[in-house]
Amino acid sequence: MGKLFLSALSLLLLFGSTFAVRSGTASWQKGECQIGNINAQEPSYSIRAEAGETQFWDFKNDEFQCAGVSILRHRIQQRGLLLPVYHNSPVLVYVLKGRGIFGLMISGCPETYESSQQSREQSQEDRSRSFRDRHQKIGESRQGDIVAIPAGAAHWAYNDGQEELVLLVLHDDSNNANQLDQNPRSFYLAGNPGRGQEQQPYREHGSRHGEQQQQFGNIFRGFDVETLAEVFGVDEETARKLQGHNDERGHLILVQRGLQVIRPPLRGEEYGRREEEGYYGGRDNGIEETICSAKIRENLDKASRADIYNPRAGRFSTVNSYSLPILKFLQLSAARGVLYRNAIMSPHWYANAHSIIYVTRGDSRMQIVNHKGRAVFDGQVREGQVVVVPQNYAVVKQAGEQGCEWVAFNTNDNAMINTLSGRTSAIRGLPADVIASAYQISREEAERLKFSRRETFLFSGSGRSSRGRVASA
Amino acid sequence: MGKLFLSALSLLLLFGSTFAVRSGTASWQKGECQIGNINAQEPSYSIRAEAGETQFWDFKNDEFQCAGVSILRHRIQQRGLLLPVYHNSPVLVYVLKGRGIFGLMISGCPETYESSQQSREQSQEDRSRSFRDRHQKIGESRQGDIVAIPAGAAHWAYNDGQEELVLLVLHDDSNNANQLDQNPRSFYLAGNPGRGQEQQPYREHGSRHGEQQQQFGNIFRGFDVETLAEVFGVDEETARKLQGHNDERGHLILVQRGLQVIRPPLRGEEYGRREEEGYYGGRDNGIEETICSAKIRENLDKASRADIYNPRAGRFSTVNSYSLPILKFLQLSAARGVLYRNAIMSPHWYANAHSIIYVTRGDSRMQIVNHKGRAVFDGQVREGQVVVVPQNYAVVKQAGEQGCEWVAFNTNDNAMINTLSGRTSAIRGLPADVIASAYQISREEAERLKFSRRETFLFSGSGRSSRGRVASA
Amino acid sequence: MGKLFLSALSLLLLFGSTFAVRSGTASWQKGECQIGNINAQEPSYSIRAEAGETQFWDFKNDEFQCAGVSILRHRIQQRGLLLPVYHNSPVLVYVLKGRGIFGLMISGCPETYESSQQSREQSQEDRSRSFRDRHQKIGESRQGDIVAIPAGAAHWAYNDGQEELVLLVLHDDSNNANQLDQNPRSFYLAGNPGRGQEQQPYREHGSRHGEQQQQFGNIFRGFDVETLAEVFGVDEETARKLQGHNDERGHLILVQRGLQVIRPPLRGEEYGRREEEGYYGGRDNGIEETICSAKIRENLDKASRADIYNPRAGRFSTVNSYSLPILKFLQLSAARGVLYRNAIMSPHWYANAHSIIYVTRGDSRMQIVNHKGRAVFDGQVREGQVVVVPQNYAVVKQAGEQGCEWVAFNTNDNAMINTLSGRTSAIRGLPADVIASAYQISREEAERLKFSRRETFLFSGSGRSSRGRVASA
Repeated sequence: MGKLFLSALSLLLLFGSTFAVRSGTASWQKGECQIGNINAQEPSYSIRAEAGETQFWDFKNDEFQCAGVSILRHRIQQRGLLLPVYHNSPVLVYVLKGRGIFGLMISGCPETYESSQQSREQSQEDRSRSFRDRHQKIGESRQGDIVAIPAGAAHWAYNDGQEELVLLVLHDDSNNANQLDQNPRSFYLAGNPGRGQEQQPYREHGSRHGEQQQQFGNIFRGFDVETLAEVFGVDEETARKLQGHNDERGHLILVQRGLQVIRPPLRGEEYGRREEEGYYGGRDNGIEETICSAKIRENLDKASRADIYNPRAGRFSTVNSYSLPILKFLQLSAARGVLYRNAIMSPHWYANAHSIIYVTRGDSRMQIVNHKGRAVFDGQVREGQVVVVPQNYAVVKQAGEQGCEWVAFNTNDNAMINTLSGRTSAIRGLPADVIASAYQISREEAERLKFSRRETFLFSGSGRSSRGRVASA
Repeated sequence: MGKLFLSALSLLLLFGSTFAVRSGTASWQKGECQIGNINAQEPSYSIRAEAGETQFWDFKNDEFQCAGVSILRHRIQQRGLLLPVYHNSPVLVYVLKGRGIFGLMISGCPETYESSQQSREQSQEDRSRSFRDRHQKIGESRQGDIVAIPAGAAHWAYNDGQEELVLLVLHDDSNNANQLDQNPRSFYLAGNPGRGQEQQPYREHGSRHGEQQQQFGNIFRGFDVETLAEVFGVDEETARKLQGHNDERGHLILVQRGLQVIRPPLRGEEYGRREEEGYYGGRDNGIEETICSAKIRENLDKASRADIYNPRAGRFSTVNSYSLPILKFLQLSAARGVLYRNAIMSPHWYANAHSIIYVTRGDSRMQIVNHKGRAVFDGQVREGQVVVVPQNYAVVKQAGEQGCEWVAFNTNDNAMINTLSGRTSAIRGLPADVIASAYQISREEAERLKFSRRETFLFSGSGRSSRGRVASA
Repeated sequence: MGKLFLSALSLLLLFGSTFAVRSGTASWQKGECQIGNINAQEPSYSIRAEAGETQFWDFKNDEFQCAGVSILRHRIQQRGLLLPVYHNSPVLVYVLKGRGIFGLMISGCPETYESSQQSREQSQEDRSRSFRDRHQKIGESRQGDIVAIPAGAAHWAYNDGQEELVLLVLHDDSNNANQLDQNPRSFYLAGNPGRGQEQQPYREHGSRHGEQQQQFGNIFRGFDVETLAEVFGVDEETARKLQGHNDERGHLILVQRGLQVIRPPLRGEEYGRREEEGYYGGRDNGIEETICSAKIRENLDKASRADIYNPRAGRFSTVNSYSLPILKFLQLSAARGVLYRNAIMSPHWYANAHSIIYVTRGDSRMQIVNHKGRAVFDGQVREGQVVVVPQNYAVVKQAGEQGCEWVAFNTNDNAMINTLSGRTSAIRGLPADVIASAYQISREEAERLKFSRRETFLFSGSGRSSRGRVASA
């Protein structure tokens, strides 16, 4: 029963349509989710910065508007720092590549990471410095992690690895937690983000340039320097630095000599072992079990944690509010799928969520069908592309010759999947006689239809049907 | 206090209006719920099928748009089967007439109805067949039942009775559970619904024909036949049958020799006794107490379960999330009213819900008043008509010479009624001196106003005032 | 963790914008919360009545539309009675001045205040009268109280003090509990509110007069007199009185000889003592602990209950769903701030709420900054003015020479504040090295930035930066 009470979020009501009718235009077919075609989307522009770039998908596309989300991808170089920022909507991050550290700053949470002289691993120089510092805790993340960030919570990230750190970021702009309008907004606490940076439209079709861009800036610029000096108790020159007027580095900056922060020693890089203990180590007492110590990270990539596994077809893992409770607050969840060569994920629909799919490796043919029984998408989806599957729309995936891996963000903290074929499918739940009558087939055929596929929802495939047609209009 | 936490759902914000102002039109009076007049509505068109027809109310009428709901009525002949279907919004069904069986298919729920050779009631032929079948549980319903169906949950229904099965269906399109826009959508899993069927507009005023129709189709048609054959492990001919291309039967089909399903034996049709045990028999252990075994049906008609009863005026029964917990998830509830000849239901308003009223027998004069103190409806409502009473609007019902019976769907899982006269009314809660001052009457008159009517909210009536005027504009 | 689950309410989606794009207009910058400038607002018109006047802020201003709220102020003379009324949205009232009594009428709650002959304090005349009366309980309120009223709950108020009673009223029109559109609506149960009254526009800029007015009337006027007579069991003359056709007193009426109601004796006006016991006296048994006896009032003014206190800067008090549980249902909260001469409230943002600020005494310079880093407001706010701070926008307050006091309504039952400077600030949570890198300053400067201000978020000020510029466009 519990499953039932995880209510969906976004209310996408037909206001455009309502208005249109009132003003005499016959347009009942229009509306936020009157989607004629869905496309596999790539980023439409990017913003470069000193230590990397951020690539934006065009959130004004019909399917993103319907789902009420926006998507972007940070590419952060080694020793690159994403400046502190907060957003008007809850955010899910998937680490596509690399490793990093990050911090969430929540007013009122204690600064629990304190420097001390006992720390063995710090150099003489560090010791004297860190002696005087203390800050809120710091998390680690690496490829395959999902990180959940509440609306309005400031955070930063830093690439402390040996390769590029690539983050895929979903903003759930239509989430209840966002009381502003559906436009994505980013409030930076530093720098000169987006200004003076070269903006790169990828294609001409992105057209109305400038308009389509996400809007953000450094909030300190809106305050008076004199006021800033006073509230921070510093001189005006330092206060002016907060505003970053002449900062040409953008929102991703390079920390030349590497970032020095206080954090627990890793036992010889035994990253795998540490994460078993939960995000911030053990939970010692009741006092710490607040939002300040909430677990906000979960690895989705490990094969050993698969929820569905078929050695001939692939695996499927989910993270929802049962495995990561903060997702109940964010009303979001995520899934990770791996299909082997030519394998198929059963046709299915989500009862209570939109699903935003990003292919991380290989390719897949996808067919997406609306309520009229029309394919709004039928084509290949390749690595790096995003496809939105609206709530209730039916979809089937067939991996190509290289197999296919993807991550999906779902707009419900416990997205309920319904399959059409396989061992747990809706069709299996039907009496054979209903099937025989509905499809005008014999009982023997009906039984075959129900019971032929014994796999749950990842099926081994022949490859016969996985070569998709070109996406049809 | 608990009562308080059942929060209402739909957010009907004034976007049309907002937009209008921005574009220069002065139209603050416009908006989703700026309703000049409410009308008693009848179906505006119907879709015929082999085994009956479905009649649709025009969901684009102002009052349905304000309430964010759509209404339809299935008339299913004997041995008629409503093909498996799911919707983008939660659904409440009221069985107006007849009896039937139905199934809800939820992915992952076990197929708990299994055939076995011990089954005494099956013929030799059935036995061999059913030996190989198993399916999810099946429910029964009969006149007076409310059945609750979550958004995105596939279901079917079958008329196994001796007369027509008539179902009144409410879709709560503006429910939080629907993340698409407010248009009603039906996703069929079989057949050729709505295509090739004769569509019957009832009146010319329905005008913009085609546009106003609900949209639905068989989702299998959007998939490639080759893909379907592969995912079901059947040949392409069978797969093609799933798409129902040449099926002329529509969404309601006739099962000529009657539907054979596995279900527990009825003890000599002792339907009344069985339902005491809960919907799906006893709850044996903890494992089954999940969404898979949630009770989704409740009979509203039995006089013995009335919540309010006045032997001289009538009775009133409600089903809400206390009596049927799944309604907490759907955020809907229902009520059934019976008024005897000339009896009156006290003027009242719902604090937290729209109320969608369908008259099942007799007729009633209704007066509905908005916040300006203007009657937006004053007229007779007859059997088969629907009236929407928006949240907070005040309404009074006076039964005609034949009495009046109705069912009401409310858009809150615990709709809170406030009456203006009678033993539990708001006026009763006022100090007599407030009444005397407010209405400029003596204290004696104030006391009479408070205490004259000792009944709760169903009043015996003289019939003097029950002959309504024609609905005034 | 509990803190996390207090989810925000309003969904302000970009429909105007969506529609505009569909119809060819390039207007992605438009939308409910695309606010170019915020202004300190004063009432734009008022409605006079016999016993006072009600002053309305123009709810169609961009900032009120973004926040989805409307604001008004009742000025009720001594012995003035606000006629019984209910609204389509939850309401928070702050008592600016004076004292009064009020009643909330909830259908089904018992009439627990009964008259009896033992009552020592009543005169002979009163005794005979009150012997026959009983009504729902009555509450008291005085300056500094917050009173919470659920949507659709009828209520009245009466000035029983020795001076004017001034009430500041917030309607949360975009609250989930309101299923109508976002327009504020008031349903009066008596009188002739707003009709025949002189309406006073304060300024020409209020322009489109008539349109902008809140709409309300006496709901009894929409009912047939004959029907009213029957449902109340009174003659038609009395019934006609309910409609108040010739009542010229408006919505605030004068009770010439004072209102006589039944209520517990005050022990020599020991108001302070009584309120410790909870709103309606002790809670004797389980039966009364329902919505009928929910506490709906809390005093925010007492210095002794301050949540934040700095003897050199001021104090800050909040009332949320932890201190007043009914606010969980209303999804609203409130705060009261007092800044001494030249003191400063740290720059901050609310993660999950809009904040509607009303200055009750003195003045303050405020700077409000949006996500682009632009000041949408920079100016003085004086006593009696309202400023809306949208969710996530950063704001700083600097009291003037006279200090500043204010009350703030927040659109979340547990609004989460994030500060930029001070002991619990986001900046404090950052590692010093992140600060040094982000702002291109030395570690010493970074440490000064973090640790200079040791106060929580109310800072003593020099007054240097508190003389604001004129609000810039």
